[in-house]
Amino acid sequence: WPKASIDNLHPADAADKLEDLPLEKQKEFILSQPIEISAESIAEMERHERIALMSTLPPALAADLLEEMSPDDATDILSELDPDVRAKILKKLEKEDAVRIKDLLKFDPDTAGGVMNTEILVLDRNLTVDQAIQLIRSNAGEIEIPYYAYIVDEFRHLIGVLSLRDLLLSLPARTLKDLLQEQQQHLIFVTYDQDKEEVARLLGRYDLLAIPVVDYDMRLLGIVTADDVIDIIQEEASEDMQTMVGAGSDETLSTPWVYSVKKRLPWLIINVFNSAISAYVVHLFEGSIAQMAILAVLMPIVANQAGNTGQQSLAVMIRQLALEPFDPRKFWSAVLREAKIALVNGCVVALCVYSGVYFWTHNFHLALVMGLALLLDMILGAVAGASIPLILKALGRDPAQASTIFLTTLTDSGGFFTFLGLASWLLLR
Amino acid sequence: WPKASIDNLHPADAADKLEDLPLEKQKEFILSQPIEISAESIAEMERHERIALMSTLPPALAADLLEEMSPDDATDILSELDPDVRAKILKKLEKEDAVRIKDLLKFDPDTAGGVMNTEILVLDRNLTVDQAIQLIRSNAGEIEIPYYAYIVDEFRHLIGVLSLRDLLLSLPARTLKDLLQEQQQHLIFVTYDQDKEEVARLLGRYDLLAIPVVDYDMRLLGIVTADDVIDIIQEEASEDMQTMVGAGSDETLSTPWVYSVKKRLPWLIINVFNSAISAYVVHLFEGSIAQMAILAVLMPIVANQAGNTGQQSLAVMIRQLALEPFDPRKFWSAVLREAKIALVNGCVVALCVYSGVYFWTHNFHLALVMGLALLLDMILGAVAGASIPLILKALGRDPAQASTIFLTTLTDSGGFFTFLGLASWLLLR
Ligand SMILES: [Mg+2]
Ligand SMILES: [Mg+2]
Ligand SMILES: [Mg+2]
Ligand SMILES: [Mg+2]
Ligand SMILES: [Mg+2]
Ligand SMILES: [Mg+2]
Ligand SMILES: [Mg+2]
Ligand SMILES: [Mg+2]
Ligand SMILES: [Mg+2]
Ligand SMILES: [Mg+2]
Ligand SMILES: [Mg+2]
Ligand SMILES: [Mg+2]
Ligand SMILES: [Mg+2]
Repeated sequence: WPKASIDNLHPADAADKLEDLPLEKQKEFILSQPIEISAESIAEMERHERIALMSTLPPALAADLLEEMSPDDATDILSELDPDVRAKILKKLEKEDAVRIKDLLKFDPDTAGGVMNTEILVLDRNLTVDQAIQLIRSNAGEIEIPYYAYIVDEFRHLIGVLSLRDLLLSLPARTLKDLLQEQQQHLIFVTYDQDKEEVARLLGRYDLLAIPVVDYDMRLLGIVTADDVIDIIQEEASEDMQTMVGAGSDETLSTPWVYSVKKRLPWLIINVFNSAISAYVVHLFEGSIAQMAILAVLMPIVANQAGNTGQQSLAVMIRQLALEPFDPRKFWSAVLREAKIALVNGCVVALCVYSGVYFWTHNFHLALVMGLALLLDMILGAVAGASIPLILKALGRDPAQASTIFLTTLTDSGGFFTFLGLASWLLLR
Repeated sequence: WPKASIDNLHPADAADKLEDLPLEKQKEFILSQPIEISAESIAEMERHERIALMSTLPPALAADLLEEMSPDDATDILSELDPDVRAKILKKLEKEDAVRIKDLLKFDPDTAGGVMNTEILVLDRNLTVDQAIQLIRSNAGEIEIPYYAYIVDEFRHLIGVLSLRDLLLSLPARTLKDLLQEQQQHLIFVTYDQDKEEVARLLGRYDLLAIPVVDYDMRLLGIVTADDVIDIIQEEASEDMQTMVGAGSDETLSTPWVYSVKKRLPWLIINVFNSAISAYVVHLFEGSIAQMAILAVLMPIVANQAGNTGQQSLAVMIRQLALEPFDPRKFWSAVLREAKIALVNGCVVALCVYSGVYFWTHNFHLALVMGLALLLDMILGAVAGASIPLILKALGRDPAQASTIFLTTLTDSGGFFTFLGLASWLLLR
């Protein structure tokens, strides 16, 4: 057991090493280390590894470990566990920690309340700068990142934010209230029920190191820090890219493969039904294909090209929904922009393909039908690709979820229908 | 002109309002505001809008605006401009700023040097805590985020990092050198030529607010801050998702549509050649299709299903490459994991489709061929989807670039070949 190699590592590195060990060795490590080190390392482990480890530890030890973590990390871990494992551990937690964590467990994990940290520096507005600095000095050990001090009134209503730098630069005898009045701040905050993606967007937009979370009475509940926002952004990016094609939102290379099967299979089966629709469209034209097998040769080109065009629009739209606050007017008018791009690209591609087909078959009408179908299906693809996320959003669903699957159904059936339809009408009458 | 509505806005909000105005109005605004406000607002504008505005301003005014920005923002903007516009503006910059910015312009914009900020707090290791705090007090106005102090020796070699909190909690008479010795830090830093994605990954991994950038002699050059890392991560996520399907890496809803056409069209044309390959595969079996048109009905199901399966593997792989340092052994063994998942999903889907086709056609052999082709092509899709980013990376290219286009070519031709090949062999002999 290579103990020396884990000692003195950063918790993030220790977690990586832990993940490579079998469960038994992980437990040995946990027992051999000071509890703060074990706790921090577990907090950095990957979800699936962490669940497995925490579920096999004796509840009393698990509780001790959670007590050492910041309340937001402890809450995250508890919320991942089986309800009965969670109940057993909660029973073993010290009263104070149990209350705090149970409070945090009430928040939806996808909201500001679900990701916030409650160990924060709160200062009364009537303190002087000097008193404030003394207070910070005596509390800094317990508080995660005291770079901002949150200033409240006697009812813990948030009235302003000062940075340590503001404090260091001000005269010791001034009150915090006065400093705030001078600064004329735009106080930026979120309510506990705001989506964590929105929290991330605001913190990024205003280049903050942390953003305060309040209730509807403006009472300060906690903060979300930049390092947590980085995690949120990375998770959301994975979620969008992976759910877009029907993979699990939290899959990684080390996810148990059975979990991946469970996440992906339902979408693949839905996709069977979807591609049955496009197959049915082709079936309608079986007669034409029997007469002219080259139609079957060319039809995948139409579908493929329109699918690619649609995915380009889809990708840009999904990323914009991740980056910008949703403004229906602006986003719906972007659908037009995508149609315009597809029109131009469609004309060029149609012309290429027209020439290619004409050169190859010397069949002017076939080449024309092919070009026309391509153009129409590419525009359909762009409009569909740009609209699907907006429609999903309007339906209250995740805008990315399975969007390429819906898109392909449309571009495939649309492409087969226009191409085979036009061909039957113009070539085979 | 709604002047009151822009005054007192956060620069990020002012930038949004500016972007909605025509160029002439933007210029009016720039001239009507205090120069610091104009400069900060321009720094927050979107690339394309910013290029247009800066290119039309008189070079002397543009230079004044750049002088007000942090050097990294000024450098970013200059590097976006036309070389001759850039030269004109550089001539108008004050000597000191010009030197600084020219130095920064030498760094590749995709590296740590290209995104670092050079206005940082550097403290000599022989200072006492008290002297350090005095120095911070007198410099805090000019320095972007003095939450970390970087401790150097007499040759500006980086020897440690202290937070304001460390300083506030220590006895005033101690030297910084002593504080560092006590802490036994793992000093985390990057060299100026490291990829900015790697910088972002390290800062996120170790939950830092900023990460120091050094040269190969460990001399401190600058820092990259968490707010810049958030921008890097968002840009990289857009880049991956958008280039994956052949859209422009930096496209947004407000990108001029002609720019989007220019970025997307080349890939669509490459895609024509790629789909010509799969069309050629179908062409090889034209005879079989003429005999049995139902083959043309079923073949898109195979291609579509394998394409979807492959995209699931692709998405997971591209996200992992964005999140984790590249370890060839680990990533290549993940290809096996994907194959295993596809094998199981493929068996289930193949069984469904087998039953469906048998129920519909009562043709046992056709159903069997369909099921078999599906299973084989889905495995091919997963292996290809997981490998393509790794192959692109091994070739020194962006692992995401056009990857779905390559994938579809493989799953389409592979699917058509197995299905039509098996059908010709087993059904039409
Ligand atoms: Mg890890
Ligand atoms: Mg939580
Ligand atoms: Mg920002
Ligand atoms: Mg963390
Ligand atoms: Mg945290
Ligand atoms: Mg999302
Ligand atoms: Mg989400
Ligand atoms: Mg903007
Ligand atoms: Mg830069
Ligand atoms: Mg982190
Ligand atoms: Mg910034
Ligand atoms: Mg990249
Ligand atoms: Mg890049």
